[in-house]
Amino acid sequence: MKIEDYMEQLGRAARGAARLVASASTKAKNDALLAMAAAVREQRERLLAANAEDLQRAGAAGLEAAMIDRLTLSAKGVETMAQGLEQVASLADPVGEISELKRRPSGIQVGRMRVPLGVVGIIYEARPNVTADAAALCLKSGNAAILRGGKEALASNQMIAACVRQGLLEAGLPEAAVQVLDNTDRAAVDLLVAMPQYVDVIVPRGGKGLIARVAAAARVPVIKHLDGVCHVYIAASADLDKALRIADNAKTQRYGTCNTMETLLVDAAVAERALPPLAALFAAKGVELRGCERSRQLLPNIAAASEADWYEEYLAPILALRVVDGVDAAMEHIARYGSAHTDAIVTEDYSQALRFLREVDSSSVMVNASTRFADGFEYGLGAEIGISTDKFHARGPVGLEGLTSQKWIVLGDGEVRA
Amino acid sequence: MKIEDYMEQLGRAARGAARLVASASTKAKNDALLAMAAAVREQRERLLAANAEDLQRAGAAGLEAAMIDRLTLSAKGVETMAQGLEQVASLADPVGEISELKRRPSGIQVGRMRVPLGVVGIIYEARPNVTADAAALCLKSGNAAILRGGKEALASNQMIAACVRQGLLEAGLPEAAVQVLDNTDRAAVDLLVAMPQYVDVIVPRGGKGLIARVAAAARVPVIKHLDGVCHVYIAASADLDKALRIADNAKTQRYGTCNTMETLLVDAAVAERALPPLAALFAAKGVELRGCERSRQLLPNIAAASEADWYEEYLAPILALRVVDGVDAAMEHIARYGSAHTDAIVTEDYSQALRFLREVDSSSVMVNASTRFADGFEYGLGAEIGISTDKFHARGPVGLEGLTSQKWIVLGDGEVRA
Repeated sequence: MKIEDYMEQLGRAARGAARLVASASTKAKNDALLAMAAAVREQRERLLAANAEDLQRAGAAGLEAAMIDRLTLSAKGVETMAQGLEQVASLADPVGEISELKRRPSGIQVGRMRVPLGVVGIIYEARPNVTADAAALCLKSGNAAILRGGKEALASNQMIAACVRQGLLEAGLPEAAVQVLDNTDRAAVDLLVAMPQYVDVIVPRGGKGLIARVAAAARVPVIKHLDGVCHVYIAASADLDKALRIADNAKTQRYGTCNTMETLLVDAAVAERALPPLAALFAAKGVELRGCERSRQLLPNIAAASEADWYEEYLAPILALRVVDGVDAAMEHIARYGSAHTDAIVTEDYSQALRFLREVDSSSVMVNASTRFADGFEYGLGAEIGISTDKFHARGPVGLEGLTSQKWIVLGDGEVRA
Repeated sequence: MKIEDYMEQLGRAARGAARLVASASTKAKNDALLAMAAAVREQRERLLAANAEDLQRAGAAGLEAAMIDRLTLSAKGVETMAQGLEQVASLADPVGEISELKRRPSGIQVGRMRVPLGVVGIIYEARPNVTADAAALCLKSGNAAILRGGKEALASNQMIAACVRQGLLEAGLPEAAVQVLDNTDRAAVDLLVAMPQYVDVIVPRGGKGLIARVAAAARVPVIKHLDGVCHVYIAASADLDKALRIADNAKTQRYGTCNTMETLLVDAAVAERALPPLAALFAAKGVELRGCERSRQLLPNIAAASEADWYEEYLAPILALRVVDGVDAAMEHIARYGSAHTDAIVTEDYSQALRFLREVDSSSVMVNASTRFADGFEYGLGAEIGISTDKFHARGPVGLEGLTSQKWIVLGDGEVRA
């Protein structure tokens, strides 16, 4: 079949399924998720075999170690996948939730009802667990999904897709509610992101290259995640114990995540007290510091930061360090060099905390907490489809609610407009 | 100056002003709005003179009557404009509102804070009052605005812009918080909608041609309003008095608005009782009916509807009429031919009302109320920047809240991630 016809057929099926899934009962959706989890456990050996096949091909193709690591499914990984499906079943159903119902002077009652977006297209790299996660979140939020995983994970994804289909069928839901592309041609992605008649939103998950390509080609809204250049600002009035604990955790708890601190801003008023213990802490963990001139007066042994360092998302044991004069200078730095992802202030000053919270224009803004908390699970969303650095529609960690919109509902008793 | 440089300069100024407006106090914003209202009243004669100039040019150019009507500012119109500014000042400030603050097991408190979108670009036709309305809504929601009105209203818009600037200056806010283009070259629009570095969202207000052009050229999100093919479905269990009152009001209260009913669906079970009085009512008001075959068996004198009629937004005293079998057939018709704007059911059946509310995928879904209520003022938003038929971000009437987004805030006391 021609790729255009294949995508047309897929899109049409998704649009048809979307109406059924949108009005499916919570019980049917949960039954499907639990049946998917059971199927994943049942098919564990075949899943691992399919994954071994993918890994063999990846090895032969000379894929880099980090990619192979993400591609690998262990027996424990399969169990985690099944538990993930069960966990989404346990989350509250957002669809149909009515809020803010108010009576108006005309007599009508006006409120909002949460409804699915329709058809969600998800484009990701070679991480087979995303197939199950994304299917679960889309289904629970009442959306039909079209999933397109990396070609390296094709065999694994097709096995997971079979489990997902089995779950849908057992619960009496349409198979087309979740479709996993078996065509990994890049042309399929270009078509998927440009079918507004069939697809309502695209969520790309992966590296910058993937996201930039999708955003450029998209003819429908995209919920996207760009850079995570996150800051911690240690203010003049910071509690130094908290500051050290937070700076340590924000940088070193994991180096490769988007909510890891990449630049540490230290107020000039506390630099003399704070920098030596900070330097000792990071030296002990093998984190390379790259400092501004003022910080190097206090820490002469560290490397000099260049202008480019302030823009850098290292995703590595490297930290840019800058001494700043006051909260305004800190916010100025964050506005100029940051990526509007997650930024934190450490302070005991109430007014300063409020200003920072209000004025820093990032998807997550924190006071006295580690940037590593910016995550759907930590925020109580139960699960996340991604972290959005957009301002529109959904911002920060995106869970079930981010996959829905709100329509207006009006309850009347024969009222007409005067 | 080259148009590219002009737009670059405008965009840069807007981006700079946006940060100041985002953190402006409610008092400063309200002071500015009240000062704008005072300026509009003070400058009434000059405003009317500028408008007369526009009208003279429009007359010479042979503009059609409806357009001249929208372009015309009367003394009363000027007063309405001033009152509109004052009304927006009286609305609650959405910026900084914190909601859903919850403590998580880790100890952090997680919530959301409402924040401005940044820079809003508004593109509209020859309706000078939109200049004041849009400026007020953008300012109150903490956004900087770039306004581009129709060239026919250039003189009027420049006078209103002067009043807006005066208000901003009196309140100590940056002039660039609201910029009104004095270049009405179409190239300016193409540039405005494709400057993601300076503009965060575009709101086109006007006819289908304008909106389609903007949507096609846009490189930033667009809050848009397409067709308003609105339905009223009179169900088998409808109270006939309410049904007649609602059908009458939904069609005849105003013919040219987007929330006017364009197709009336009547359940077969009540057709015999409902159609004759409906026909009489519409005949008395000069509304032409175009019916399906089954409706013409009961009303042999009405015209036959063609397939194209079901898709039509008449914006005129014409109504398409169709007899349907049950709520499923009605919802099927709405899903197929409707524009997802506003649809209403008239019914006394509780389960049917719930199904219609939940399953009809329109920006406003109503039970026993006239579609004409779909409006920012009627919904209690205070004012509206437009009605969105998109699903993404904002749906239906868009007021101050639709011009904001929510970021996450985390209040900690030194917590780190385990």
